[in-house]
Amino acid sequence: MKILVLNGNTTVAVTERMIAALNPLCPENVQLIGATAPFGMPYVSTRAAVAVAAHAVQDAVRAAVEREQAAGRAPFDACFYACFGEPGIEALRAEHAFPVVGMAEASMLTALQLGERFAIVTVGAAWPAMLRDLMRRTALEARCAGIAVVPGDALAVATGREEGLRLVRAAVDEAIVRTAPDVVIVAGAALAGYGTALAGQVPVPVLDSLTAGFEQALALARLGLRRGG
Amino acid sequence: MKILVLNGNTTVAVTERMIAALNPLCPENVQLIGATAPFGMPYVSTRAAVAVAAHAVQDAVRAAVEREQAAGRAPFDACFYACFGEPGIEALRAEHAFPVVGMAEASMLTALQLGERFAIVTVGAAWPAMLRDLMRRTALEARCAGIAVVPGDALAVATGREEGLRLVRAAVDEAIVRTAPDVVIVAGAALAGYGTALAGQVPVPVLDSLTAGFEQALALARLGLRRGG
Amino acid sequence: MKILVLNGNTTVAVTERMIAALNPLCPENVQLIGATAPFGMPYVSTRAAVAVAAHAVQDAVRAAVEREQAAGRAPFDACFYACFGEPGIEALRAEHAFPVVGMAEASMLTALQLGERFAIVTVGAAWPAMLRDLMRRTALEARCAGIAVVPGDALAVATGREEGLRLVRAAVDEAIVRTAPDVVIVAGAALAGYGTALAGQVPVPVLDSLTAGFEQALALARLGLRRGG
Amino acid sequence: MKILVLNGNTTVAVTERMIAALNPLCPENVQLIGATAPFGMPYVSTRAAVAVAAHAVQDAVRAAVEREQAAGRAPFDACFYACFGEPGIEALRAEHAFPVVGMAEASMLTALQLGERFAIVTVGAAWPAMLRDLMRRTALEARCAGIAVVPGDALAVATGREEGLRLVRAAVDEAIVRTAPDVVIVAGAALAGYGTALAGQVPVPVLDSLTAGFEQALALARLGLRRGG
Amino acid sequence: MKILVLNGNTTVAVTERMIAALNPLCPENVQLIGATAPFGMPYVSTRAAVAVAAHAVQDAVRAAVEREQAAGRAPFDACFYACFGEPGIEALRAEHAFPVVGMAEASMLTALQLGERFAIVTVGAAWPAMLRDLMRRTALEARCAGIAVVPGDALAVATGREEGLRLVRAAVDEAIVRTAPDVVIVAGAALAGYGTALAGQVPVPVLDSLTAGFEQALALARLGLRRGG
Amino acid sequence: MKILVLNGNTTVAVTERMIAALNPLCPENVQLIGATAPFGMPYVSTRAAVAVAAHAVQDAVRAAVEREQAAGRAPFDACFYACFGEPGIEALRAEHAFPVVGMAEASMLTALQLGERFAIVTVGAAWPAMLRDLMRRTALEARCAGIAVVPGDALAVATGREEGLRLVRAAVDEAIVRTAPDVVIVAGAALAGYGTALAGQVPVPVLDSLTAGFEQALALARLGLRRGG
Repeated sequence: MKILVLNGNTTVAVTERMIAALNPLCPENVQLIGATAPFGMPYVSTRAAVAVAAHAVQDAVRAAVEREQAAGRAPFDACFYACFGEPGIEALRAEHAFPVVGMAEASMLTALQLGERFAIVTVGAAWPAMLRDLMRRTALEARCAGIAVVPGDALAVATGREEGLRLVRAAVDEAIVRTAPDVVIVAGAALAGYGTALAGQVPVPVLDSLTAGFEQALALARLGLRRGG
Repeated sequence: MKILVLNGNTTVAVTERMIAALNPLCPENVQLIGATAPFGMPYVSTRAAVAVAAHAVQDAVRAAVEREQAAGRAPFDACFYACFGEPGIEALRAEHAFPVVGMAEASMLTALQLGERFAIVTVGAAWPAMLRDLMRRTALEARCAGIAVVPGDALAVATGREEGLRLVRAAVDEAIVRTAPDVVIVAGAALAGYGTALAGQVPVPVLDSLTAGFEQALALARLGLRRGG
Repeated sequence: MKILVLNGNTTVAVTERMIAALNPLCPENVQLIGATAPFGMPYVSTRAAVAVAAHAVQDAVRAAVEREQAAGRAPFDACFYACFGEPGIEALRAEHAFPVVGMAEASMLTALQLGERFAIVTVGAAWPAMLRDLMRRTALEARCAGIAVVPGDALAVATGREEGLRLVRAAVDEAIVRTAPDVVIVAGAALAGYGTALAGQVPVPVLDSLTAGFEQALALARLGLRRGG
Repeated sequence: MKILVLNGNTTVAVTERMIAALNPLCPENVQLIGATAPFGMPYVSTRAAVAVAAHAVQDAVRAAVEREQAAGRAPFDACFYACFGEPGIEALRAEHAFPVVGMAEASMLTALQLGERFAIVTVGAAWPAMLRDLMRRTALEARCAGIAVVPGDALAVATGREEGLRLVRAAVDEAIVRTAPDVVIVAGAALAGYGTALAGQVPVPVLDSLTAGFEQALALARLGLRRGG
Repeated sequence: MKILVLNGNTTVAVTERMIAALNPLCPENVQLIGATAPFGMPYVSTRAAVAVAAHAVQDAVRAAVEREQAAGRAPFDACFYACFGEPGIEALRAEHAFPVVGMAEASMLTALQLGERFAIVTVGAAWPAMLRDLMRRTALEARCAGIAVVPGDALAVATGREEGLRLVRAAVDEAIVRTAPDVVIVAGAALAGYGTALAGQVPVPVLDSLTAGFEQALALARLGLRRGG
Repeated sequence: MKILVLNGNTTVAVTERMIAALNPLCPENVQLIGATAPFGMPYVSTRAAVAVAAHAVQDAVRAAVEREQAAGRAPFDACFYACFGEPGIEALRAEHAFPVVGMAEASMLTALQLGERFAIVTVGAAWPAMLRDLMRRTALEARCAGIAVVPGDALAVATGREEGLRLVRAAVDEAIVRTAPDVVIVAGAALAGYGTALAGQVPVPVLDSLTAGFEQALALARLGLRRGG
C-alpha cells in the first residue's frame, strides 16, 4: 500500500520530518511518499496562505500521480493531507479516485468517537475563525467545546520542544478547565508530537492530529473504495 | 493487538460470521475476539430490542474484559460494536479505557471523508426514525442526503444472498437517483458484504458498514490512547 | 383515569415518595400506580446505569400492563416516566398505545412555553453531557441557556432537605447570574420539591421537574389519543 | 381555576364556539372566560392580519385582566391563546404573571412527546411560510416532517363540516404518505374538531390543536408558577 | 427614487432626526419621505411596544402609499424600516410591491459580508432576548458572537451625546474583549451616529445600524424588482 | 468612488462584458476597474478550478492595488468579486482594508430581505454541492428552498442568448413549482442578464446575481468602513 503524505506549505523539511515521524507507525506493507506544495508559504498561518495552498496542493498531487504513472508504478491508495485546515481538499477529492484524508477533519471525526465534545488546541491567531469556518462547512461544530490558541509563532513552537511542550500543556490545561471536553485535539503539523507527549498526563485523552489523521488515511486506504462506471 | 467484536443481538452465528468476514482483513498482529449479547433479541430491529441491547452489551463487554483479566491476558485495544445504531455505546465508552467504535457512527464518519453527502441503505422499517435520532444526537445529520429501506426481514435478506443483493442494489440505485449522494452506506450486520459486492457497479463509492466500522476500530486501537490521572 | 408512575431505578421508596408527592396534585378521578425498575441501580447517575434502566423499564411497564389486563382492569391512560433523562422512552412509546411522558422532555417543553431560554439545575457530574445528548437528540438544545450541577451525591441531596435546599438555591442563583434564563428547571427525582420550595424566592419561575412532568402526563392522558388501524 | 380563552380575530362567534367545544373537557373547578380581539380581521390568514392581531390581543387581555380586578375577582390562572400561530404571544408573556399558552406551540410540544416527527395540516396558503418562521423562532422545526395545506377559505372549511372533513382527511392522508410522520397536527381554530373526528381512522395519532392547546393551558395553570421579587 | 423612512415609534422628532442624518448620505436623485407610527410608544423597548408597533407600521405605510397615490405621485422604490428589531416587517413585505428593509436584518447581513462573526451593542434590557428571537426566526444567529447592552434608558442615551458615546464605547470595548468579533453593530435608532463616531477608534469595523440599513434600502431600491403576474 | 470588479476566471472578455453590463447601473461618481484572474480556467465550474481561482484572485487584487498605489491614485472603495461561489473571498477580506463583496453571498443576503426562502438557479453540475458547502460555511442554508441546475455548458448558455433564456426560464419555473420560493436567484456570471430579463414574467421576484452583488458592493463602499488602530 502506498500513501501520499501531502504538505500544504513549501517547507520540505516539514514534509520529511512528518514522514520520519510516521514511518515508525507504518504497517509493514505501507510505503509513504511525500509531496510538498511547490509554491506558497513556509507555514500556512493566514487566510492568504490558505488560498495559495489550496492551489499549490492540486499541482503537488497531480505531479505525484503523474510521476507514479510515468514510472509504471501502482497508483496511490490514499492521500494524507497533513495540514490542519486542509485547504482545497474538496478539489483533491473530486479529481482523484483514491481517498484524501484531511488532518483537521480526520482528527475531529476521531474525537467524535471518543466522547461527547472535543476541544482544539492550536497555534496561530487566525486559526480559530478559520476552523469555525471549516467546522460550519463540514457541519462538525455542534460538538466542539472550544478552541484554545498557543501564543507565539508556529515554527518557533514546533522547534523549541521544551518550551513548546510547556506552552501546549498550558493551553490544554486551560481548555480542559474552561470547556470540560472529553477529548483534546492538539492540532497542526507544527504541534505534531506534543499530543502524544501529553498522553496520560492530563485527565482526558489527547489526540495528536498527525497520528490521528494518518490512522484515518490508513483506514480509508484499506477500504479500497472504487467508483463505478 | 486485540479487538473485541461485539454483537448486540443474541445470535452467536452472526458474531461468528462477522469474525469470519473480518479475519481476512486483519493485519497480521491483530486478534479478534467475539462477544455476543447474553440476552435480548436474535436481531435488533425494534426500539424495544434496542433498549434491551443497550443493557446486554454492557454485560457482554464487562464479561469479556473480566475473562481476559482472569486469564492474565492483555486488555483489549479497542471494541468494535458491530451493530448499526450501536445502542448503549456511550455507556461502554464511559466505562472502559479502550476506544469503542460503533458501526453507524464509524460508517458516517468515514463517509464524511469521501464527499459532501451520504445516503444510507438499510433493512427494517423502524430504522429511519432510529437513525435520525442517532444522527441528531451525534449531530451528524446535516450531511445525510436520505435513508432508503430495503423491504423485508433483515435475517432473510442476510441469508438469501442473490435475492438480497438484488434488493440492496435496487435500494442503492433508488437512493442515488432520488438524493444524489456522494457515497452510499450499506448499513447493518445483516447487509454485510453487499456493499463490497456493489463496489464499482454504481457510480458512487459504496461503504460496507461492517468493513468501514472495522477499519475505524483498527485506526482507534492503533492510536493507543490512554486517559491520564 | 389511571396513570402509571414509572421509576427508572430500583429504589421502591423513591417510587413511593413520588406517588405520595403527586397524590395531592391529582384530580379526583385520577389514580396513580407505581412501577419500579426490577433491576439496575438504586439511583441512575452514570451512563452504564442509564443503559440498564433503558431495559429495566421495558420490563417494568410490560409487567404493569399485563397485571392490569390479567385483573380485567382498564388500560393505563398514560405513563409518567419520572426519571430525568428517561432512558428507553422511545421504546416505551413504540410499544404501548398510551402516551409516555418523560420528566426531562416534559420539563423542557413546559419551560419553552414560559420564556425564551431555560436553565437546568441538577445533581450528578455525568448529567450535563447526558442531557446535551438528550437535547441534541430531541432537538431542544437551542433554547437551553446552560446546565448547572449541584455538588454531591444525589441521594444525599435528596435526603438532607435543609442542606439540599441551600445547595440547590446556590446553583439556581448561579445559573441565573451566569446565563440569564427566563425559567430554571430543578431537575430529577432527587431534587423533587426543591423547585416548588424556591418558587417566589428567585426572580424567574422555577419548574420542579416532578410536577411539571406529571402535569404533562395528565395533559396527554386527557387527550385520549388512539392510533387507527 | 380560571382560564382566559383568547381569540386573535374579531369573530365573537368563534370565541363562543371554542368555549362551547372546550367546556365539556373542563375539569369541574375550571371556569373559561372568553376574550376576542377588539379590532383586526374576522379570520387571521395573512401576515397583515397577524400584525394587527399581535396588537389587538394585548388590549384584549389587558381589558380582561382589568375587568376581573375591577370586580374584585381572582386573577386568571392561565391564558389559552387559541389562534394557531399566536401572534404577539411573547408580549403577553412578558406582561402578565400567569402563563400564556399558544395553540401552535402547545400542539407541537405535545406532538414532540408522541413520536419522532410531526406533520401539520392547516388551511390558508400563507400559513406554511408563517409557520416555518414560527418554528425557526421557537427552534422547533427540526422535527417537523412537513406542512400540508387544505385548499379553500378557512371559514368555509370550518362551516361546511362534511365537505370540510373530507378535505382535511385528504390532506392528512397525503401528509402521511408523503412525509411519514408519527403524529399529525390538525391546526387552527377553523379546523377544530376535525382532528378529533379523524382519531382512530388514520394510522397515526391525530392532534386537534384546540384540545391539545387547551390541555397545555390546564397543565401550566395547575403548576401555579409565580415569579419572585 | 423615493424612499419611505419608517419610524416604528410615535416620536415624530426621531423620524425627523433620522431623515436629517440620512439626507447628507443621499444620492442626488433620492428623496426621503418620513412615516411615523400613528400610535404606540414613544420608544420601542418592550415586547408589548413591539406588538403595537407591528400593527402601527402597517397603518403608517398604507397611509403613506395612499397619500402618494392620491397625489398622483410615483410609488415608493423602497421602505427603510428604521427600527432595530423591525416588528411586523414580514407583513409589510407581503403587502407591498416595493422592498422593505429592516434595520436589524440589514445590519446583520452587512456585517456578514465583513467578517466571520459580528457582535451587537444596543440599549434596553429586553433586547437581547428579542434579538435572539429575531436571529432564530431569520436563521442569522450562527455567526453572532454576542450581544452587549448599554445600561440606561434609550432616549437618554440618545440625547446626552457625550455621556452616550462614553457608554457605547465601553460596551463596544467589552464586546470586543469578551467575544472577539470581526465587526460590531451599534444598533438602534437611539444609538444612531455613535457607530460612525467610533469608526477608526476600535480595532474592528463598527457598523452604525442607521446608515447600514439605509444603504441596504438604497441597494434594494436600485434593483427595481417587480413581481410577475 | 472606485470599485474593483474581480473576475475569478481567466476570460478577459467576461470581465469586460460584466463591466459593460454594470456601467449603465453606475451612479455618476463611481468608476469600475476590472481585474481578471491571471491564471486558472476560462470558466470556474469544477472544484479544481475553484482551488486555483482562490489563489489567482489574491494575485489579481494585490496587483490592482499596487497599480493604483504606484500611480498615486486613491485606494479602492470596495471590491466586487463577480464569481458566484467566490473562492478565496475570506483571504481577500483578511488582507485588504476595503470591503469585498461576493456574488453568491450578496445575492443570498439580498434575497433574505425579500422573503422567507430563496431558490437558486445556476449552470454546472458541480455547483449544487459547492453551494451547499458555501451555505453551510456561511450559515445561510436554512432559508434556501433548493438549487436547480440549467443543463449544459456555462459558456454556451451564456452566449446563445435565446436558447439560454429558454433554458433558464424552464429551470426557474421548475424551481418555483417544486420548492415554492419567495425569490429566485439566477446565479453566476454566465447567466448575467437572464434574471433581469425574466423580471415580471414569473410570479416571484427574480434576482440577477450580477446586479444584486454589484448593489451590495456599492452599499458597502458607501459605508466607508475603516479599521481602527
